[in-house]
Amino acid sequence: MRLSQFHLRTVKETPADAEIVSHQLMLKAGMLRKLAAGLYTWSPLGLRVLRKVEAVVREEMDRAGAIELLMPTIQPQELWEETGRWQKFGGQLLKIRDRKEAGYCYGPTAEEVITDFARHELASYKQLPVNFYNIQSKFRDEIRPRFGVMRAREFLMKDAYSFHLDEASLAAEYRNMYATYGRIFTRLGLKFRAVAADTGAIGGSASHEFHVLADSGEDAIAYAVDAQGADASDYAANVELAEALAPGARPGATEAMRKVATPVQKTCEDVAALLGIALARTVKSVALMGDADTGFVLALVRGDHMVNEIKLAKLPGLGEYRLATEAEILEHLGSEPGFLGPLAPRRPITVIADRSVAALADFVVGANEPGFHLAGVNWGRDLPEPALVADIRNVVEGDPSPDGKGRLALARGIEVGHVFALGDKYSRAMDCTVLDADGRAVHPLMGCYGIGVSRIVAAAIEQNHDAAGILWPAAMAPWQVAVCVINPKADAAVAAAAEALYRELQAAGIDTVLDDRGLRPGAMFADIELIGIPHRVVVSARGLDAGTFEYRARGAGDAENLDRAGLLARLSSG
Amino acid sequence: MRLSQFHLRTVKETPADAEIVSHQLMLKAGMLRKLAAGLYTWSPLGLRVLRKVEAVVREEMDRAGAIELLMPTIQPQELWEETGRWQKFGGQLLKIRDRKEAGYCYGPTAEEVITDFARHELASYKQLPVNFYNIQSKFRDEIRPRFGVMRAREFLMKDAYSFHLDEASLAAEYRNMYATYGRIFTRLGLKFRAVAADTGAIGGSASHEFHVLADSGEDAIAYAVDAQGADASDYAANVELAEALAPGARPGATEAMRKVATPVQKTCEDVAALLGIALARTVKSVALMGDADTGFVLALVRGDHMVNEIKLAKLPGLGEYRLATEAEILEHLGSEPGFLGPLAPRRPITVIADRSVAALADFVVGANEPGFHLAGVNWGRDLPEPALVADIRNVVEGDPSPDGKGRLALARGIEVGHVFALGDKYSRAMDCTVLDADGRAVHPLMGCYGIGVSRIVAAAIEQNHDAAGILWPAAMAPWQVAVCVINPKADAAVAAAAEALYRELQAAGIDTVLDDRGLRPGAMFADIELIGIPHRVVVSARGLDAGTFEYRARGAGDAENLDRAGLLARLSSG
Repeated sequence: MRLSQFHLRTVKETPADAEIVSHQLMLKAGMLRKLAAGLYTWSPLGLRVLRKVEAVVREEMDRAGAIELLMPTIQPQELWEETGRWQKFGGQLLKIRDRKEAGYCYGPTAEEVITDFARHELASYKQLPVNFYNIQSKFRDEIRPRFGVMRAREFLMKDAYSFHLDEASLAAEYRNMYATYGRIFTRLGLKFRAVAADTGAIGGSASHEFHVLADSGEDAIAYAVDAQGADASDYAANVELAEALAPGARPGATEAMRKVATPVQKTCEDVAALLGIALARTVKSVALMGDADTGFVLALVRGDHMVNEIKLAKLPGLGEYRLATEAEILEHLGSEPGFLGPLAPRRPITVIADRSVAALADFVVGANEPGFHLAGVNWGRDLPEPALVADIRNVVEGDPSPDGKGRLALARGIEVGHVFALGDKYSRAMDCTVLDADGRAVHPLMGCYGIGVSRIVAAAIEQNHDAAGILWPAAMAPWQVAVCVINPKADAAVAAAAEALYRELQAAGIDTVLDDRGLRPGAMFADIELIGIPHRVVVSARGLDAGTFEYRARGAGDAENLDRAGLLARLSSG
Repeated sequence: MRLSQFHLRTVKETPADAEIVSHQLMLKAGMLRKLAAGLYTWSPLGLRVLRKVEAVVREEMDRAGAIELLMPTIQPQELWEETGRWQKFGGQLLKIRDRKEAGYCYGPTAEEVITDFARHELASYKQLPVNFYNIQSKFRDEIRPRFGVMRAREFLMKDAYSFHLDEASLAAEYRNMYATYGRIFTRLGLKFRAVAADTGAIGGSASHEFHVLADSGEDAIAYAVDAQGADASDYAANVELAEALAPGARPGATEAMRKVATPVQKTCEDVAALLGIALARTVKSVALMGDADTGFVLALVRGDHMVNEIKLAKLPGLGEYRLATEAEILEHLGSEPGFLGPLAPRRPITVIADRSVAALADFVVGANEPGFHLAGVNWGRDLPEPALVADIRNVVEGDPSPDGKGRLALARGIEVGHVFALGDKYSRAMDCTVLDADGRAVHPLMGCYGIGVSRIVAAAIEQNHDAAGILWPAAMAPWQVAVCVINPKADAAVAAAAEALYRELQAAGIDTVLDDRGLRPGAMFADIELIGIPHRVVVSARGLDAGTFEYRARGAGDAENLDRAGLLARLSSG
């Protein structure tokens, strides 16, 4: 492609309404143009990237034996009534009436349509297992569409649906899709994790989310690494669901309990700093109200840990807990927050200690007296053992992995894929049956497998960018190589050399763009960096004289001058 | 592809609700599954064909210099208000309200969206000319969706929109697209015609429709052929718009006028048969009422011609003509219909003769007396020359082509493409401007160019089918070659030979399907014929013994036995 015959329109200013870096860079690079809230036109540049992602997804789905078809975007209300989702799906379902007042929706997903297809097309167990997929526009009427194509209303999704006679077959295809997703994200050059997930609204028996790791991700993920930071296992979980293992046995007491003045030190950090001790020796007391039987609860975690609300809510009596009010705290502990502790409450309380707190000796807690903490506190000697010891904290970096392999690293993730074992939820609701080997009509088991094709583009940018712009993984780059021509209109020899190089690279199967727009070098290089082309080659009069081309890899510091053979060798090696 | 790992589901019965052969065959071949009125799921088989069409369209658009982007299917009401089409487009526009009650439509076309894109993205004449295209789902809420994907509500369309500084540039791109469309339909292996068209609702200054020729087409087309039936020129027009040229000079009179008894002969055909003369010597009289000045009109065409209502309505005084009532006919001519003629009317009438009637001598007309005609009638001698001689008939097969090259052939066509020169209608309505070389803001001129991608699939079948099923042109076939295995489960040697041949053909770049389903030969062959695979190869034990494969081209009468080299040579030659 010659840029003079393409439509590239970059902008210098960071758009004011774009909150995250991928949205900012996609707008600056001119990949997107907003049409309306949550609706974007993919420019020629943006579409090139989107199609590369789509092609990898398609190739790997085909390789995995899935069969592509194409469903309409518009789906009839009747099918959604059969599964009850016409009411239950909620406001994200864009409901439509046609000119005859018949009800439709713009498909946000296609379980109903594919199950309707299957109940007409599948008659016998001999046709199973089968996995149908579709790469098609979807629509979810987000209340607050934002972040560009990260949370658009109309988006491109790959959705696959498999049908099985038994659990073993479903499990095999689930594993097949799990492995396929790994291949897809690996080929796309993305750092990602598969995370065991709750099944949520779609229902079913097993589910994994695939997250692209990026600091801006909405989800926090814990995964296992070895001492060098390499993967120690395939363990990964949402931080809120990852188990914090019990530490070793509690050491013996070595200090006497003493009251220390902490006149303005209300946080564990401040107290630890004042006393010159490790934050991990302080204990945070969180005051809660459980159910009527349980009453006032003091939940204890180490000063360097955070209470995990999901884990707390799974404990007996805390199913619907809330934070205690200041009045309740004063009533039970006799102190204002900031100096709370489990010793000498005014009224009976329930003390729940995190496993790591139960393993402490010589620790520091609030004295239930404004301006004072207690140090050198020890379980059994200074206060009773806790009523309950449980995992009530978030895991932190360096915690042992729950699967016993390595330690946990933390990352933030952007969900770009999801695999579900659905079971017979949809086949039963819509009475989709096949005849088994004995001639009995049975409801096939189903799996469903989604990938947010357009979201991947944004997620890749969140993961791969620098101050100059996007750093595309090779498989997603709009072009692999940009040949930049200095002053092509004034220097015919340079223009001809660049053209020859461009043709040579194209002929060698290297996807190349020729920047023949005649921009000043600074503006041209800025564009090529912004749009993230992995390899830049500059053709200039000076280089021609020296018999070299200037080569620079995107993200590398320095440029090198290479002769033609050296350049081709470099570019051919990827 | 191995059919055992594909989803192919053919049906024997012709579906009762499918009215045209393409819809019937697409359902029988299992290419489509109806989801709701005018909404179809493309099965894996159907999608393979659709994607082949899409790929050819994309390749040729790219080659022509058009630049692909991707617009959302959902478009905001505000843009359609700017052009006034929110009201004017009519009931086909599927209007939608989102959860915030904002107005949208499902795009039936994208002039508004692309013009909005252009007014933001195009700033200077230096960016012109440019042609953006998009292959995307469209929706038209047809009152009566029917004929399968021939007139579906949701369909796949390629729509392109070009922007120009001046008429010459627009005209050049119009010609470029006209030529590109020709290449597309030629590559797809379709017999087609480009037909000059009225611009209709989209407006603009020039327009051509591209029609795939098929007996079932909704439109009648006349085009120029030479004596051998080959194209004599690129002349083609809607039959109703094609000009019927004037014939040669009128010969001299050779007969005397005489009254002949035609007791029950009311039609020209019956009169010509009774008298033993050519139908072209008889004259049909059509009684009309023009405006107040014009009054009663007798329009005369030859017995072998049909009056053309569009041409009549363009004549002075006939802008809003209607057929005369029987009372008006009796009042002016004194006879009932069936025996009408231009001689001796009771009251003054206007006689308008088609050019071919004005050139007749010794002709036959009604006598204005029930049961009688007049024969041997001659202009100037027996009745006055006609008040007006004009082209008022439809062209017929064999008429000279209006461009002077060859004679007209008639065909029926299915519109699959349309090119328009729009002018500044949309750029002006939406105030899309660019700066010209003098720094003045000007409204660019636009062209738009559509292809009904999904409709092409149906049109190709209308043009190419036989009693056994579909006859795909090579470029559209789901696969080029089917390797059919006789009894693969019982005969390992046959299965292995078929597998080896399949791999060899695939390796040679020949898109091949292996029918390894183990069906009886009759059922297998019927499927392969129905779905229209161009080349069938049968691998059987008998063939293996003889060292041959049975080869048959789809649509050919007989099969041949070829050895491996002969088979490969045959298949490689296309």
